This record gives sequence, structure tokens and C-alpha cells, in this order.
Amino acid sequence: MQRVDNFKSIIDQYDVIFFDAFGVLKTHSGLVPGIENTFAYLKDQKKEYYIVTNDASRSPAQLADSYHRMGLHAISQDCIISSGMLTKEYLDLKVNEGIVAYLGTENSAHYIESSGLHTLPVSAIDDSNIDKVNALIFLDDEGFDWCRDLNKTVNLLRRRTIPAIVANTDHAYPLTIHDVNIAIGGIAAMVESIVGREFIRFGKPDSQMFMFAYDLIRDQRSINKRDIVMVGDTLRTDILGGNKFGLDTVLVLSGNTLPQDVDTRIKATGIVPTYICDTAVVKPGELEF
Amino acid sequence: MQRVDNFKSIIDQYDVIFFDAFGVLKTHSGLVPGIENTFAYLKDQKKEYYIVTNDASRSPAQLADSYHRMGLHAISQDCIISSGMLTKEYLDLKVNEGIVAYLGTENSAHYIESSGLHTLPVSAIDDSNIDKVNALIFLDDEGFDWCRDLNKTVNLLRRRTIPAIVANTDHAYPLTIHDVNIAIGGIAAMVESIVGREFIRFGKPDSQMFMFAYDLIRDQRSINKRDIVMVGDTLRTDILGGNKFGLDTVLVLSGNTLPQDVDTRIKATGIVPTYICDTAVVKPGELEF
Amino acid sequence: MQRVDNFKSIIDQYDVIFFDAFGVLKTHSGLVPGIENTFAYLKDQKKEYYIVTNDASRSPAQLADSYHRMGLHAISQDCIISSGMLTKEYLDLKVNEGIVAYLGTENSAHYIESSGLHTLPVSAIDDSNIDKVNALIFLDDEGFDWCRDLNKTVNLLRRRTIPAIVANTDHAYPLTIHDVNIAIGGIAAMVESIVGREFIRFGKPDSQMFMFAYDLIRDQRSINKRDIVMVGDTLRTDILGGNKFGLDTVLVLSGNTLPQDVDTRIKATGIVPTYICDTAVVKPGELEF
Amino acid sequence: MQRVDNFKSIIDQYDVIFFDAFGVLKTHSGLVPGIENTFAYLKDQKKEYYIVTNDASRSPAQLADSYHRMGLHAISQDCIISSGMLTKEYLDLKVNEGIVAYLGTENSAHYIESSGLHTLPVSAIDDSNIDKVNALIFLDDEGFDWCRDLNKTVNLLRRRTIPAIVANTDHAYPLTIHDVNIAIGGIAAMVESIVGREFIRFGKPDSQMFMFAYDLIRDQRSINKRDIVMVGDTLRTDILGGNKFGLDTVLVLSGNTLPQDVDTRIKATGIVPTYICDTAVVKPGELEF
Repeated sequence: MQRVDNFKSIIDQYDVIFFDAFGVLKTHSGLVPGIENTFAYLKDQKKEYYIVTNDASRSPAQLADSYHRMGLHAISQDCIISSGMLTKEYLDLKVNEGIVAYLGTENSAHYIESSGLHTLPVSAIDDSNIDKVNALIFLDDEGFDWCRDLNKTVNLLRRRTIPAIVANTDHAYPLTIHDVNIAIGGIAAMVESIVGREFIRFGKPDSQMFMFAYDLIRDQRSINKRDIVMVGDTLRTDILGGNKFGLDTVLVLSGNTLPQDVDTRIKATGIVPTYICDTAVVKPGELEF
Repeated sequence: MQRVDNFKSIIDQYDVIFFDAFGVLKTHSGLVPGIENTFAYLKDQKKEYYIVTNDASRSPAQLADSYHRMGLHAISQDCIISSGMLTKEYLDLKVNEGIVAYLGTENSAHYIESSGLHTLPVSAIDDSNIDKVNALIFLDDEGFDWCRDLNKTVNLLRRRTIPAIVANTDHAYPLTIHDVNIAIGGIAAMVESIVGREFIRFGKPDSQMFMFAYDLIRDQRSINKRDIVMVGDTLRTDILGGNKFGLDTVLVLSGNTLPQDVDTRIKATGIVPTYICDTAVVKPGELEF
Repeated sequence: MQRVDNFKSIIDQYDVIFFDAFGVLKTHSGLVPGIENTFAYLKDQKKEYYIVTNDASRSPAQLADSYHRMGLHAISQDCIISSGMLTKEYLDLKVNEGIVAYLGTENSAHYIESSGLHTLPVSAIDDSNIDKVNALIFLDDEGFDWCRDLNKTVNLLRRRTIPAIVANTDHAYPLTIHDVNIAIGGIAAMVESIVGREFIRFGKPDSQMFMFAYDLIRDQRSINKRDIVMVGDTLRTDILGGNKFGLDTVLVLSGNTLPQDVDTRIKATGIVPTYICDTAVVKPGELEF
Repeated sequence: MQRVDNFKSIIDQYDVIFFDAFGVLKTHSGLVPGIENTFAYLKDQKKEYYIVTNDASRSPAQLADSYHRMGLHAISQDCIISSGMLTKEYLDLKVNEGIVAYLGTENSAHYIESSGLHTLPVSAIDDSNIDKVNALIFLDDEGFDWCRDLNKTVNLLRRRTIPAIVANTDHAYPLTIHDVNIAIGGIAAMVESIVGREFIRFGKPDSQMFMFAYDLIRDQRSINKRDIVMVGDTLRTDILGGNKFGLDTVLVLSGNTLPQDVDTRIKATGIVPTYICDTAVVKPGELEF
């Protein structure tokens, strides 16, 4: 473990950079100031980069669009890997027909819909269609009535022996500088414990997220895991997942892990990043291009 | 472990009977048919009985009243021990002033209110009063907006280092013959895991429930644990709790544990009742009084 | 929560004091220096005191003896409440015949043996006697071959549907100033998870420990929970358990909870003692008798 | 979910077959009778096959050798994917120097050793070398003194903030038709809970196992996940893992899942295989070559 002042000096050692989104590129109040310099430098150096994010609330196109509206145009939909994309791949491969019931917004469901499948919110499941439900997906904490629809979800799973997929492993997410919201991953864990089932989870730290990005790169050229570095603000997702997949990792202190807590948390969890760096921002003074 | 056809023959061996409520005395469709015979026999034999129930949604007086309205007049409020009563005792002993925030109906909160304390629903907590909140109580799954108020609860606990009390350990409860509802104990477990705290739980299988009933008896006369039997329909609450407290236990098959599953479940959990009996009903033909 | 410099000023407010043993009265290197003053003061003031300890390795008589050998003569066996005593009570009430298999030293087993029961170490269980085994007790981490006997224990529980009792809830205990040992409670949790059963646990924070002590007092005179204070060094056992039972609590910083960590740990766990005090030692300068 | 009598008819639909080892190809008493027919048919049909196994106790060469000695010559070391191989890859990528401490046999450690690294059993770690230990690996339940070395392991992790890798996720494994043994995965879970860390686990159901095999195939030719089927006897590892990776799955009833329990277990866990088939044996009568 090495403390590094200069994020540029880390980038310079790798060919491909994976970034977490929240706490690294943006916070509740918008883009991390100066982060556009990082991407300008990456483009100048012809380095590849990917955003690897536990977010199933929107499609990659919509996620990219939200960066563009904040003024960061370097993030295209092709470089976004989301847990929602893994969910969509699962449905494409494993659920061929019938209804996929979901908890989330219509927007999140639209994206995972594929040819043979029909998505329906849990609220629209009733005796007339319950026998056609072949999967249940936890997509987003918004877009449904928690009390009514979580009770319906429990009883749907008691009646139907179907796979339940959690498209976001996070249990909470930051809302403001002080407050958090319960995420769909936290809600899903409650339902899982009540029905006593094993759900399928997509999202960091699971290696399937990293593999998906790794495969996208390999489709175009050969790459070694030693040439990729994962940058994140959370030990239990970004750093643990990156380490396990065999990547070097950078913990930045602009999000979930505060500068005053970093030593205690690393010691407590035993999750050790390759580097610790204040931010993922390349400072203008460090650039010579 | 002994299978017994005749509930009366079990009663005859003990001085005091503890009953679970749901699945033993009543089900979703009302009183268990014939259960009034059991209480008539108990009264005739001058046996003491108590209802030991994980229910904090209403006061003992209101619970007793609901039995009277169903036609069972033998249940007075003095013989009801609820997890709500333990919650009230905790507040009386440990929280002397300020506000107790709660999740539940106004009815459930009314009951736990005591002299120095003011109860407020979580929805009414804001910046003006949050610093006076000295405890948080999970009372009932009804009476609040799950999405808005559970998010508020998480953030209340992040701001205030206060005890959180769960007044019902159940994670789900039966609603109809097919369906269940998520109980406040299940919701509380989700919040506990998100905030990473240790909550205080009142309810079976915890021995404090049994101790409360045991103390009520001892206030009036001396009693030995060998002279008490606990009757319940659920292995993990009624039977485990009764066994651990040192009581003999009867598993009845009129509720949570179905006749076809009883052997598998006992083997799987390792929780062994003293007796298994179809119901807690004393059949008229067995009576000779 | 109140920080108090002077342990004597806390004692003065209560009639009965419950003490945890390890980290409060003694550490790995012997008695806490000066602790004998505390007991001299308690005797002078005619205050009652009890040692409430998660220890099933020896009988109360042997535990008292070990204090006497260290030079603390104020601790008699009558004022020691151990999780081993609860285990013995359970066996007396619930297991009437046959063999009780155990993991621990012969010494620990000797103590729990009662009239109708025969104790045998797990290593002595074989095809000739396995059908007579009616309970399994986890007593101590010493006295058996972990590899051979833990594998035997798993298979004993797979063959026999019997209660398994854990006589000490701790998962680890301090060995030197730096090192810990795995406790029998940690070993039992592994076996429980492998066999998928529900074990019965005796020890703090469970309220049955406190009730046992409370009952001993009430056998002799009437007492109110408000007049008892629990003194301990561990938030999750001593303080959580004392709080839940309705007692005032004192966290001392001479053991498990270090002075530099105390604020972080209270905030992280949400377990709040009534008082924080450096030690349970009454300083000679504070005494006026 | 489809019940299929004829394993050959399943094979015929796929290009590549992944097999679990224990419970599918072999049991405690040796090879599953007739399993050699399956491999003869696969060779005849020029189908690819891999053994995907949670086993880190030996190298692929040694594992292959053990099949040859039992008379199954179709299993070469090139077609074995073990959790030990993932552990070795992790060390190659992430731990560049110093000592790797391990729990297991010398044989298991020999295999994971690589150029810059020195492996030492936990028993050989002392004050002279503890500062050079850069990783800890749980390899096998044999080859060490459980009591002495597990206590040493706990204290090693308390002193050194290093990654801990569990090379086998299983918590128990079958020893005879009646008995099981505690596996290193179960032991590691106990140590993890005592030290409060997050360990890195390799083995099914984790998708990294499947990806490793998938990558071996893709190194030689292009393949679609739809053309691979996973055959296993355990719902929570083989079937859950295969499903999550996007493969079709076959549950066979020759091992962990008994014919009389299969419906209950699928309903209880919500893990649904594509097919259920008695065994992975192709019967001679089904062959026409």
C-alpha cells in the first residue's frame, strides 16, 4: 500500500483505467471539480477507460447523457459498464419467455426488456398473470409503493419458484452531504431473508462486473490484467472487487472513505488498495501536454 | 418428544399454561373452533394461564377486548404478556426525558407513552426536535409511509446515538391462508443492517418475555418452572424460547407448522418440543365436569 | 451518557453492583491494581455485589478460589453468576436421562453433572452409546482435539436430533496484552452454521444471565431494577445486556474498550452506557471510612 | 425446469460440458459406475468438457492422476479448473514478494508457490518472519494442528493487515455415505467472523470459476454461453453459479441432492436448474456408435 499525491503518476503506469462513478467522478452536488482534466489527459495519452458502476436505474445511454448535461463529454455510453447490463445479459440468456416482474421505475425496466419478454411492475401482477411470471428483478428503490409492493413481492416469491435478481448490490447510497437513502440492494436483502431464498446479485465486488468490462477490451485487443487499474472510493465494493479480480486498485478519498478514517477502515476490513490518493483529479500543473 | 392425541392430558400435568396467540388460539379467520372449551376446562380446574405474544400493536386491554368481541371472554388483560409491555418497561426504566420517535400506529404509541416522555411518529421529527429524540421504537408495520419514513429513520440513527428498540421480533406474519405480510421485526432488521448498529429486541424466543410472565405469577405465589408448560405453533419462537427458559413445551399444528412438515422441521432446526399435539382444543368428549 | 472520574460516586447511588470479571476485576496479568479497595468500600457500605461472567470452564467455587489465590478474598462463590450455572439449570430442568456429550475439560463437565445424567466427552461417543446422547454442550475451548472432536460433533448432530447448548457466548478471549484465543462460542457458531441448526446460548448479553442474579437477590429481599448498576468493559455483552434488562450501566476502560476508541465504538454500535469511568477502582483518597 | 431420463439427450444439445467432480463423477466409494461411458461418448462426439471443482488440496496434475488411478483416463490435467488455480492466479497478480502463510498440506502449498514468493505453514510463522508475511491462504482442512494453528492464524491477522484468501468455498464435504468433514471454507468463515475482516473467496458459486474455464475455451475458438451446460449435484454451488454465469444447468441426483428431497430443496432455495436428471451416466443402450 502506497500513498500517492499525484493521480497522474498512477495513470502513467497502466493502459486501461476503470472508474467507479459516485464518489469518484461525481458527488451529490455534481461533478468532482477538475475531473474533466483527468479525462482530457487520458484522451491525450490514448488510454482506455471504463466506468464500472452499481447502477441499474438507467440505461448506459441515459447515464452517459447525465454526464454530458453536467459538462463531462468524455463519457460515452460505450465506456459505461453497469450492473443493469449484467441483469439484461442474464435475462437474454436464461429467461426466454413470459413475464419479468420488477421493482423500480418504468425507465429502468424499459432498458432490460428484450424480444421475447414482457416486463411488468410488481403492482400489475395479479391472479390473471402470476403463473406467467418467470423472474423477479430488483432494479431501483424508486417507482413503486414500498409497503404495498414489497408485501406483494414476498407473496409472489412464496407462490412462484422463480429466480430473483438484484441488479444493484449497494444497501444505501448518498443523497446529500449528510443523508443517505436505502438502496434496492438493502430492500432485496430484507425480502431474501423473509422468504429464505438465494437471490442472484449483480454488482461490485462481484467479479462478473469486472469480467464484463475486461471482455469488452479483449474483443478488440489483447490485454493483461496487470495493465488495468481500478479507481474507487469504497473498500467493500471497488477495492475488494478489483483486488479479487487481480487488478491493482486506487482508493480515492473524495467519497465514501474519509481521509481521517482511511487507516482505521483498511485495518478493520483487511481490504488493502495498491494506492491511496486524495482524488482522481489530474491537476493542471501536473500536465505538460 | 412425545405425540399426544389429547391436549387435556397435557394440561392435567401442569399448574400454569402459557399460550402463544396466533396459530394457537386464533387464525386469520377468527378463533380456533372449540378453543373456548380449553379455557372452560382451565377455569374449572383452577389452572392459571397467560397469553405470551409478540405483539406491540395494541395494549393488553385492547388485545383482551379483541378476544371478547370474537366471543372468548376468558382472556382478560391481566393474563396477556406482550412484547409491547417489555418495551414500555424498558422506556420507564431507561429513558427519562425527551422524545421517543416511533414507527407504528398512533394507537401502538399511545400505549407506551409514560409520564416524562413524549412520543412522536418518525414523520414528525425535523431539525427543530431531532436533538431531543432519546430513543427510537419499531412498533408496528402499519401507520407510516414505508419509503419516506424508513429513509428518515436511517438518517435519524446516523445523526443521533440513541437506543433503537424492536418491539416485535417476528419478520413476517400470516395475513390469509396463503399470504403473509412483512412484520416490523423484518423491517427493523433491514434498518439495523444498513446503519450497522445493535438494536434491542423484545419478544420470543428471548427469555425476557417468559421471565415477565413468570414474575407475574411469583408476585402472588411460589412456583417451579417444572409446573409450567408453553404451548405454541412456531418452533423458532415459542418452542425454542420455552425450552431455553427451562419449560416443557407443546408444539400444536394449527398454525405455522403444518402436520406434513413437522418431522422435517424439527430435524432441520434441532428444536425439539416436549410434546406434539394437533391443537390446543380440549374436546367436549374428554371433559367430565 | 456521563463521564465520571470517580467510581465511588457511582457506587454511592445504587444498592447492588453487578461486575463483569475479565477486564474489570482482572486482566491477563492478574488483578486490576487497587480493585480490593472497591470491595472494601462495598463491604463497609453494606452494598451487595455479584460477579456476572460468561465462563463455563469452572464451577463458582473454583472461580472464587482463583480470586482468593490472587489475594481478593471478597469474592465468595455465592456472589458468582456464571453462564455455566445457567447451563446446569437447563440440564436439571430439561434433560432427565441418558448421556450429555460435551466439548471441554473434564473439570468443566464435572460441574454440570447432575443426578440422572451421565456426562461424556465427545471423544468417548461411539456406536455403542450414541443413541443415548440426549444433549450436547459446548463448555470450553480446551480439553479436546479440535480436528477429531469437532468433526465428530458435526456428525453426532447429523445423527441425533438433540438440543445443543453453548455455555459461553464469547467468540474470543484475551490471552496476553496482544493476543487472543478462539473461545468455545466462536467454535460453536461454526458448527451451528455447518449443521444448520439453532443452538441454545447462555451468557451476556442475554437477559437470562441478569435474571439469574436478580432472582438470587429477590429470594432474600425486595429490590427495584433502578437500584442495580452493571459494570463492564465490553459494549456488546455487559452494556447491551445490562441496558436491555433495564439496568443502569458503567463502561470501564480497563479491558476490551480502549480510552482512544470509546467514542467511535459507542457511535458505531449505538450501545450507550449510563456512565463511562476509567476503572472500577475506588481510589484510597476518595475513602473517608 | 424439465425432468430428463436420458443424460445423452442433454449432451446432444451443447458443445461444451462443465462437470462438478464430487457427487457427479465420483463419490466417497470411487467412480460413479458407468461414468466412463459418458466420456467415451463425449470423445466420440468431439464435445469439449471441463471439470470445475472447489478443490485446492492438490494441483490439476495430481487431481487428473487420481482419476487415472481409478480407471478414468479421459480426464487430463488440461480439462481441470480448480479453485486452487484461481488462488494461484491471484498470488501471481497481486502478491509480488515476501511470505505467503497457509493452512493446509505441504502438497497443496507447493502447487501455489511461484517465483518471487515463499510459502510457509502458519505453524512456521514467528516473530522473526511475521513482518514479511504478505498474504494468508486457507487451502485444506488437513496438514495442520487445528487448535494451535487456528489461534495463531487469528493473531497473525490481528497483527498484519494482509489479504486472506479462501481457496475453497465449501463448508463441509462428504467422507462416507453417512458422515461429513468440516471443510477449510467452514473453518475460514469462523476465523473471518472472529477477526471481523472481509476474506477473498474462490470457488463456485462465484462466477470467477466459470469465467476461468470459459476463457480457456475462448483462447482457442469462439463460443457462446448458450452452447455450454453445467452439470452438478449441489444447488447452492453448481446450479446457482452456473445460472448466474448465464449457463444452462443440470442437477444430477447422485450426490448432495437426494431424489426424495429435490422438489423441496428447489422450492426452498429458489435455485432452479434447467434440467433434473438422475445421473450424468450415458447408458450403453443409448449409444449407437
